[in-house]
Amino acid sequence: MKARVHVTLKQGVLDPQGTAIQGALAHLGFEGVGDVRQGKLIEIDLQESDPARGRAQVEEMCRRLLANTVIENYAIEVMS
Amino acid sequence: MKARVHVTLKQGVLDPQGTAIQGALAHLGFEGVGDVRQGKLIEIDLQESDPARGRAQVEEMCRRLLANTVIENYAIEVMS
Repeated sequence: MKARVHVTLKQGVLDPQGTAIQGALAHLGFEGVGDVRQGKLIEIDLQESDPARGRAQVEEMCRRLLANTVIENYAIEVMS
Repeated sequence: MKARVHVTLKQGVLDPQGTAIQGALAHLGFEGVGDVRQGKLIEIDLQESDPARGRAQVEEMCRRLLANTVIENYAIEVMS
């Protein structure tokens, strides 16, 4: 099975990459662009076939490695 | 409205960040982890309220700035 993890900065945490994108979009002439935030997308192939066990495993990966839970949120999507 | 863009490396393009995560997960003792790929997640607030026009605008942002279409794919999700 495959798992997809979205890691995003928590609200209130400064996001210089997002701000840079916002500035570049304005510079290119795009109007009406508000806040831009950049996060990470991590796709993992797992041998595990049970969705619940797979999700638990990815949850632990997020806590231990993939996300810095002081400043980042994560969301896990498990695909068959 | 809000748009979410997933930018991922095309198949066959080397992904050193993904490989580093895969190695780190193995080092932490996670078993059964196959291929890992890392991409970008970009969330954009738009003043545009029409979903079709909003999507077209983000599509142009992807082509002109957010994705390098030689090596990257992008997927756009428009949220109300």
